[in-house]
Amino acid sequence: MTEPFDAVDVIRTKRDGAALSPAQISWVLDAYTRGAVAEEQMSALAMAIFLRGMDREETAGWTRAMIDSGERMDFSGLVRSGARSATADKHSTGGVGDKTTLPLAPLVALHGVAVPQLSGRGLGHTGGTLDKLESIPGWRAELSTEEMMAQLRDVGAVICAAGAGLAPADRRLYALRDVTGTVESIPLIASSIMSKKIAEGTRSLVLDVKVGSGAFMKDLASARELARTMVDLGTGAGVRTTALLTDMSTPLGLAVGNAVEVQESVEVLAGGGPADLVELTVALAQEMLAASGIRDADPAQDLRDGRAMDVWRAMVTAQGGDPDAPLPRARESETVLAEADGVLTGLDAYRVGLASWRLGAGRARRGDPVQAGAGVLLHAKPGDAVLAGRPLLTLLTDEPARFARAREALEGAVVIGPGPAPVHPVVLETVR
Amino acid sequence: MTEPFDAVDVIRTKRDGAALSPAQISWVLDAYTRGAVAEEQMSALAMAIFLRGMDREETAGWTRAMIDSGERMDFSGLVRSGARSATADKHSTGGVGDKTTLPLAPLVALHGVAVPQLSGRGLGHTGGTLDKLESIPGWRAELSTEEMMAQLRDVGAVICAAGAGLAPADRRLYALRDVTGTVESIPLIASSIMSKKIAEGTRSLVLDVKVGSGAFMKDLASARELARTMVDLGTGAGVRTTALLTDMSTPLGLAVGNAVEVQESVEVLAGGGPADLVELTVALAQEMLAASGIRDADPAQDLRDGRAMDVWRAMVTAQGGDPDAPLPRARESETVLAEADGVLTGLDAYRVGLASWRLGAGRARRGDPVQAGAGVLLHAKPGDAVLAGRPLLTLLTDEPARFARAREALEGAVVIGPGPAPVHPVVLETVR
Repeated sequence: MTEPFDAVDVIRTKRDGAALSPAQISWVLDAYTRGAVAEEQMSALAMAIFLRGMDREETAGWTRAMIDSGERMDFSGLVRSGARSATADKHSTGGVGDKTTLPLAPLVALHGVAVPQLSGRGLGHTGGTLDKLESIPGWRAELSTEEMMAQLRDVGAVICAAGAGLAPADRRLYALRDVTGTVESIPLIASSIMSKKIAEGTRSLVLDVKVGSGAFMKDLASARELARTMVDLGTGAGVRTTALLTDMSTPLGLAVGNAVEVQESVEVLAGGGPADLVELTVALAQEMLAASGIRDADPAQDLRDGRAMDVWRAMVTAQGGDPDAPLPRARESETVLAEADGVLTGLDAYRVGLASWRLGAGRARRGDPVQAGAGVLLHAKPGDAVLAGRPLLTLLTDEPARFARAREALEGAVVIGPGPAPVHPVVLETVR
Repeated sequence: MTEPFDAVDVIRTKRDGAALSPAQISWVLDAYTRGAVAEEQMSALAMAIFLRGMDREETAGWTRAMIDSGERMDFSGLVRSGARSATADKHSTGGVGDKTTLPLAPLVALHGVAVPQLSGRGLGHTGGTLDKLESIPGWRAELSTEEMMAQLRDVGAVICAAGAGLAPADRRLYALRDVTGTVESIPLIASSIMSKKIAEGTRSLVLDVKVGSGAFMKDLASARELARTMVDLGTGAGVRTTALLTDMSTPLGLAVGNAVEVQESVEVLAGGGPADLVELTVALAQEMLAASGIRDADPAQDLRDGRAMDVWRAMVTAQGGDPDAPLPRARESETVLAEADGVLTGLDAYRVGLASWRLGAGRARRGDPVQAGAGVLLHAKPGDAVLAGRPLLTLLTDEPARFARAREALEGAVVIGPGPAPVHPVVLETVR
């Protein structure tokens, strides 16, 4: 077969700072999927994109080409209780203690909006939604498309693994970027996320773009650029898309890990839970409901009333889980004490995430197992008064040998001062 | 085995614009040679180097690491006619019609300096010295180190293929750069050339850095930078190194191809040949002889007297060739006529090289065969008066189907005007 382009010419075009044409982009990703463009050629191109950037048109073309590399799902025919159902999805760029998907999916489904939430496993210091849910005895992440549709129809929400057929070029490219130092590129991140979400076929999408030490985007300006890029990609593809920029300078809620995050999510669904987690869950629910035309809902009141708990239990049960089974607990724990009296003015998200990862909650390599019970519990949040010698954090793991490196990760993570602590609103900005 | 560095960290260091440490450089090339750094990681690093550059210290470290990936040759014990023999080598960055190595090696050896000339095959529009010599019936390029030493001792000059043991990291890296759009980087070109020449163990080296349309370096500034980088690398490694910047806006001599270039070289050795080719051969010989302390030689007179012909014949014979055998001739030829009366003011080196390549003198892929007889003969050089309808070029090939694409390559190559033609000295500058 004669190829219409030469990979070296495409690489050179970007290397020399010019824009790739739509035809070059669609060819290069298709040829990469077919194996006609080699891994080493794609990594050189990814580095050229990293350093030269891609404009909006290129990024949109890149996203389309990744969608075209696989199948597309279609929820347009979904009927619930005799009526066509709107679909709404949420994506977080990843943070520490970010379990919002768990209370959010049933909370939105409660109002008749179907929530097809395709999620991933964790890699590095941010946890993965599927890893958290897999701490529920019996729960399984892999569903067929038919099972997913049936659960959306019968329960209204599903959180499951994305099938291999969705944007397979993205899957390969992501693995390649991971080993070639080309991850942190806004056009590549945006197209990676949005290709899967657009291919998934949701009608609307709310993006939770995390900002701060525990997030990909460390500062507001780059988070804003990423959010703008993704909102434009979604809108351009006919998906009603908004983004909230939210704080990730400190962990979300009081629990970081797997089972402990499920536990905290259930507390939120029962009307309790930490204020920041509740606030973010409600803010995201309002955006998702509004995108489906539902403006008279009061998700904060729904949570206080525990009204979404039944949907949650049905979701867990439908995927083989037992919502009443006790969650796994770590075999060992150690306490980190406050070293001074004062106000907790800082508790660094990245370092806490790293400690949780080292305790066994995360994996170093794709396919590694994670510990269900491992993680970190917070006994204070920034702004709280603390007393010297009182517990500040509890470290959880099945393997006590892990405590030492977790404590190393936490060095400098805790700042106690005279106060007051700097105020970090949960939601920083909205991008539409 | 635990690696002291992580490939992704090394890539990120360069990607973010910092200098690589000597330890990072020596690790990454060693790990690449061992297979612990993957092709796709090295190509991402090569693109980061392409776009971010390397400073002098990094380039020197890179060169050392490539030398250390293989064996080094040693001519320090070479004895000729009872005396220790100096060694001198020449390297050209590649041009069209550049056959200077052929008359140069015997011309320098004539004065008792040993010339160990490791050469390559052509790829793309510039020919390869070995391809040219292989048009001599019986001549073979592959010699063992022992055969090479014996020929240097007995004949004084050898032109042969570099063994696989010399800078193997460079060999792999060059093949990788070729398919990933990372060839035209001055630090990577300079370290590639110099690692082989330093590992070869020559005592002195003269670089012929070509400038113009038919060369890698299209302008004087970048040629100067490449020359400066290579001279510093050589000098830093104890090799007496100088560089001549020479014109490659038009082909060198009147013959472009394989057998036709051998024929022209023999004419030079017999006291004839085109003026520009003679001038460059003499200039390079003077540099090589001066680097070996021989300042009273007159290579121009040597050529006029045909004194180097015996060395040439001995060189060819020692490698199995028959210096008296007729050279292969192309089966077909076509003539390109001048379209107007006037002065030939331009004859583009790149386009003539491309035409010769398309006629079969060069190869598209490593390992392809080349046609011994194919090529282009020039009947005029810039500055010459031409008459409409008179032959300007002769195209040579065994396969007449190739003429059409060769003529396409030549479109715009010939410029005939009222004159005078711009003057291009053969040697533009010397870098020491």
